[in-house]
Amino acid sequence: MLPGSSIGQRLVLTSFGESHGKSIGAVLDGCPAGLEIDEKDIQKMLDQRKPGQNLISTQRKEGDVVEIISGVFRGHTTGAPITMVIWNSDQKSKDYENLKTKLRPGHSDYPAMIKYNQYNDHRGGGRFSGRLTATHVMGGAIARKLLKVTLGIETNSFTSQIGKIKMEREFNEKMINSIYKNEVRCPETKTAKMMRTSILDARKKGDSLGGIIESVTTNVPVGLGEPIFSSLESDLSKAMFSIPSVKGVEFGSGFKGSELYGSENNDLYTVKRGKIITKTNNSGGILGGISNGMPITMRIAFKPASSISQKQSTVDIKTKKETTLQVKGRHDPCVVPRAPPVVDSLVALTIADHALISGQIKPVL
Amino acid sequence: MLPGSSIGQRLVLTSFGESHGKSIGAVLDGCPAGLEIDEKDIQKMLDQRKPGQNLISTQRKEGDVVEIISGVFRGHTTGAPITMVIWNSDQKSKDYENLKTKLRPGHSDYPAMIKYNQYNDHRGGGRFSGRLTATHVMGGAIARKLLKVTLGIETNSFTSQIGKIKMEREFNEKMINSIYKNEVRCPETKTAKMMRTSILDARKKGDSLGGIIESVTTNVPVGLGEPIFSSLESDLSKAMFSIPSVKGVEFGSGFKGSELYGSENNDLYTVKRGKIITKTNNSGGILGGISNGMPITMRIAFKPASSISQKQSTVDIKTKKETTLQVKGRHDPCVVPRAPPVVDSLVALTIADHALISGQIKPVL
Amino acid sequence: MLPGSSIGQRLVLTSFGESHGKSIGAVLDGCPAGLEIDEKDIQKMLDQRKPGQNLISTQRKEGDVVEIISGVFRGHTTGAPITMVIWNSDQKSKDYENLKTKLRPGHSDYPAMIKYNQYNDHRGGGRFSGRLTATHVMGGAIARKLLKVTLGIETNSFTSQIGKIKMEREFNEKMINSIYKNEVRCPETKTAKMMRTSILDARKKGDSLGGIIESVTTNVPVGLGEPIFSSLESDLSKAMFSIPSVKGVEFGSGFKGSELYGSENNDLYTVKRGKIITKTNNSGGILGGISNGMPITMRIAFKPASSISQKQSTVDIKTKKETTLQVKGRHDPCVVPRAPPVVDSLVALTIADHALISGQIKPVL
Amino acid sequence: MLPGSSIGQRLVLTSFGESHGKSIGAVLDGCPAGLEIDEKDIQKMLDQRKPGQNLISTQRKEGDVVEIISGVFRGHTTGAPITMVIWNSDQKSKDYENLKTKLRPGHSDYPAMIKYNQYNDHRGGGRFSGRLTATHVMGGAIARKLLKVTLGIETNSFTSQIGKIKMEREFNEKMINSIYKNEVRCPETKTAKMMRTSILDARKKGDSLGGIIESVTTNVPVGLGEPIFSSLESDLSKAMFSIPSVKGVEFGSGFKGSELYGSENNDLYTVKRGKIITKTNNSGGILGGISNGMPITMRIAFKPASSISQKQSTVDIKTKKETTLQVKGRHDPCVVPRAPPVVDSLVALTIADHALISGQIKPVL
Repeated sequence: MLPGSSIGQRLVLTSFGESHGKSIGAVLDGCPAGLEIDEKDIQKMLDQRKPGQNLISTQRKEGDVVEIISGVFRGHTTGAPITMVIWNSDQKSKDYENLKTKLRPGHSDYPAMIKYNQYNDHRGGGRFSGRLTATHVMGGAIARKLLKVTLGIETNSFTSQIGKIKMEREFNEKMINSIYKNEVRCPETKTAKMMRTSILDARKKGDSLGGIIESVTTNVPVGLGEPIFSSLESDLSKAMFSIPSVKGVEFGSGFKGSELYGSENNDLYTVKRGKIITKTNNSGGILGGISNGMPITMRIAFKPASSISQKQSTVDIKTKKETTLQVKGRHDPCVVPRAPPVVDSLVALTIADHALISGQIKPVL
Repeated sequence: MLPGSSIGQRLVLTSFGESHGKSIGAVLDGCPAGLEIDEKDIQKMLDQRKPGQNLISTQRKEGDVVEIISGVFRGHTTGAPITMVIWNSDQKSKDYENLKTKLRPGHSDYPAMIKYNQYNDHRGGGRFSGRLTATHVMGGAIARKLLKVTLGIETNSFTSQIGKIKMEREFNEKMINSIYKNEVRCPETKTAKMMRTSILDARKKGDSLGGIIESVTTNVPVGLGEPIFSSLESDLSKAMFSIPSVKGVEFGSGFKGSELYGSENNDLYTVKRGKIITKTNNSGGILGGISNGMPITMRIAFKPASSISQKQSTVDIKTKKETTLQVKGRHDPCVVPRAPPVVDSLVALTIADHALISGQIKPVL
Repeated sequence: MLPGSSIGQRLVLTSFGESHGKSIGAVLDGCPAGLEIDEKDIQKMLDQRKPGQNLISTQRKEGDVVEIISGVFRGHTTGAPITMVIWNSDQKSKDYENLKTKLRPGHSDYPAMIKYNQYNDHRGGGRFSGRLTATHVMGGAIARKLLKVTLGIETNSFTSQIGKIKMEREFNEKMINSIYKNEVRCPETKTAKMMRTSILDARKKGDSLGGIIESVTTNVPVGLGEPIFSSLESDLSKAMFSIPSVKGVEFGSGFKGSELYGSENNDLYTVKRGKIITKTNNSGGILGGISNGMPITMRIAFKPASSISQKQSTVDIKTKKETTLQVKGRHDPCVVPRAPPVVDSLVALTIADHALISGQIKPVL
Repeated sequence: MLPGSSIGQRLVLTSFGESHGKSIGAVLDGCPAGLEIDEKDIQKMLDQRKPGQNLISTQRKEGDVVEIISGVFRGHTTGAPITMVIWNSDQKSKDYENLKTKLRPGHSDYPAMIKYNQYNDHRGGGRFSGRLTATHVMGGAIARKLLKVTLGIETNSFTSQIGKIKMEREFNEKMINSIYKNEVRCPETKTAKMMRTSILDARKKGDSLGGIIESVTTNVPVGLGEPIFSSLESDLSKAMFSIPSVKGVEFGSGFKGSELYGSENNDLYTVKRGKIITKTNNSGGILGGISNGMPITMRIAFKPASSISQKQSTVDIKTKKETTLQVKGRHDPCVVPRAPPVVDSLVALTIADHALISGQIKPVL
């Protein structure tokens, strides 16, 4: 939806704010009336993504306390837009220093400067900062609760790969409780440790790492998704690519599936306890753009963070000459461990949107 | 955009029709006035995707002659919606036979039946048929010309992998002319031959193959894409996942990039003939969701076609018992070779949409 | 919704075509699956607005036979977009004559020329022709049936004033059957005759007349309309002003109500057969933008048709000098009698849209 | 746009908050980067509508101090969403008293209760309160400045009628400076006095009055408005009907024009200082839904306020029995004098939206 700060069709999240401005916040419009909601529901998910909580992420301290300023009355949603705000506190840093003219490789600096002329709020990344994903979580925490309460849908994501270190086993539902037991959000304890070491190692070198988040959503009813252009895959991928650093999205067997024969990749139907299911789930729970009742599975590729403290060659936009640059300040050597609540939020928002569109969730609970 | 048959914000394509209905067609609204357009411009791209042209695709003969029925006057667009229709001719097949109750593995049958009850037009796949991608090409051919004429933007895609057979070299612009020189749309002659053999081999076995399409768009101005939720990546991926069988999308270094260090993946800036460019293009031409002037590169994973003639085990939806099924009739052993014009169309529509949003293309030429 | 050829949010009508182009038509997307529909349902309403049927309207003969080319299968809607076309037959008139440079007073010529440069299809009014309202009726006929079948909602409009001749009595439901018994669509026989005479008189003088249409919709459930900006009044008025020549819209007591005291204009509640109703209906069935269960009543003002055969002074856009002009050709001395089916169509589309949004009509019947 | 709290297509205002909640506020997305903006620009217009300023309106004291919490950097817009908040201070009134069960005639109580069940925030009117129009003014003040700075467009509205008391003369531009010289916002001093007296008189009787606002917008370029469904009239009327109490809208000669002959109502073209204009302006500056360069003129009918202190008969929703009711508390005997800044705001937002759509205002200034 234009102009770009909103996502969703029936359940619409509008994100506002800048990394070093007064506030960041979100308006969630279209949430059914009658959902019990509390700032604690939102805070809990926000805390899971907040920085400064451990060694591996940026040491900036952010209180990140969410405040609901509209749309909730007597502990329930009213059907009116729900507005949530976090007041930025830790942004005193030379806020008004002049715009850096040395282009940071991998950053949005350059296209943003060209697009918005000198008007872009560049402080701390402005609108392009990963910090803005907290606004997705504000709305997502509500959507996630809505899905749970109305349809029993659960969405969980976790770190399955950091750099070249990958989980050994396939994810299964029993692992859910292990996700938040370590700092990297990987449900395999041993792998999590190796991931942690590799991140600390990258930090030491002044370098950064990327990785992969996997997302699994269960109890999805059959029939969500509107062909042709509002398929579940279309809308989920659109949501995922709104997360900074995401460069790839695949469903089910994804890229690997494209190397298989049809006879290998097709999921065969069977009946279990009276319910039609498939024996495998290479489709990732989506056929023809519509949910088929199997878990929706997605893998999301994050590039290594652009901000590294190593010296890099670049160009000065003023002189249009080559020069070198060393990015200073606090930054995450790896953003992936902070991404699961963001992914969960956008998945929940998208699926709740479709559940409303298809009438599976009513406008008043 | 709701209800699902439309894509785009400022330049909107609405797709209509069913595989075995009277017609398929498209309405393109928001195209600037003054673009010279002719049915031949559209027909040429349609012919590149039409089936029945060679051994490897379905043998159904479709005339697929496009007719413009509104929006063009004296050979130019008028600013009014452009409606294009193809009349379905070859759909006599037992149109009214009863809905098959044996669920075809990998197909949209099952979720579509549940979603639409008995009302879904199941004939030949109905709305879910790959045939509907012709409606994307109708609009895409116009968008592609618009981009070429106004901004010099060129979008080209090609088959880079079929099953496990991959191109050997990186794509470069000189290969463009070779794409349509063979049936599989792979610019490497030798690889193309191997791909062809493997497809014929799969057909013989009653099986199917998937593959990967790569898309390269050049001459894109800096500044297309609206943060946060209407980023170029968000909107391009949304468009790609509206193509049946697509299960993965990545930009630039994509999934591979997530295994690299930041120091390896960052694209360093330099100056070439007075223009700021990057030495590598791991970003795929998009930073912070906004085009940075480098070629936009995307890889799109297609699963192997679901329709195979091998016997498969499945469930009968009526009896809710397991049974076996053999899918009959004509179908492609591999849809990938027909996909490049479809990918090009959706890329062109999305980029033209953003060029209009950002004011780089005017509403009247 | 951008770019302007579509209306509705959940039930979307896209209008295409030009007065003297190949065709006019409409795509209705979002109609629930399972509605029994037939071309006759649509044709009947189209016939009620078609020209050439009697003395008082233009003598152009239009077959105006609608053809459904997608979205209906075995006599029912499928949930897919429904496309309807009328092929223009009677448009041979010097189609390619050069654009008139003398501006026709009251016409869209001048702004359209400036907006679209030379590219506007000016033939017979092009996109601005009243003929395009047939595309509203195509979608409206389906929406009207949908409302009737699902919720028992009935929408009826009629001519209540032509020039200065007004109906004597208030409209009541018994009058519905009399609306289409005369050429002017006024349910009072005596008044209808006077209206007819005044129209014929205006025609003789080479002049034109305007008038007022009243619309009454009954059996509307309580609760349709989304505050603040998608109120029923907002969306109904938006729809009404898309009809050429409409210059005013009021609900309930409207402009007259603004002269009353609150104690006079407030509708007092009472109970009738266990149902809460109001004793009067000055609100026109809408409070706070939401339906209150009373009939929705609206009055729509049509200006006198701009095309008159009297000589008028004007400006030649080429020379930028004053000159005189005499508009030739066939045209209606009064368009009001043809408007009721158009008003009914847009009312039905808007109310059906809101019934879908609020969940009162399901996506599958 | 769904779900109802937003208006605009390219320039989108989202309104949030409740009359007696923590805050009311607005997010304006799509405003071009580079507009100089200050809280004072907004405060000035807010002060013009704020209550408690004189005898004739409600005596509730509201500070109504606006705070910009995102989207402005170094005194200029950045292209990011601009969020503005007013903190509600004066809402201590028995906030949690139980929902009144006696339906207030003319109020949204009844449909809101049915629509939202018990979840509606009924305190002080909640979302339906006239207080929410302050959120329109927040966005409108910015849009109005944008129009002034970029295209020289000026929009002004004023009270032309209160109850049966009407202005004597036609409005002309010289009157603009007189609008805010009196409490009723009527530029005719003598009429303003009579209006004031009649309002005070109504208050004494425990009654209320309605009236008419006229809006005049000058310097509008030719070519704004997108046929067919996004005409200027469609979008302006949609905006007007989002103001509580509005029950009628007309453009130019409006309802009166429908009684005229075409030869009387047509505006004849002439040339003045090299510019094509019309001698009269019965069209209200809009032909075929597109601006023709003449002033856009609109009349908006407001019903008398529903809250009156006279005893009224009504129904108790619990017992479903008739009863009587006396509405207590502070309320305006006439809301019309507070409406001009609201009308100006929505006119400015709508016209700025169309100026952006048609490319007459650029995304970066």
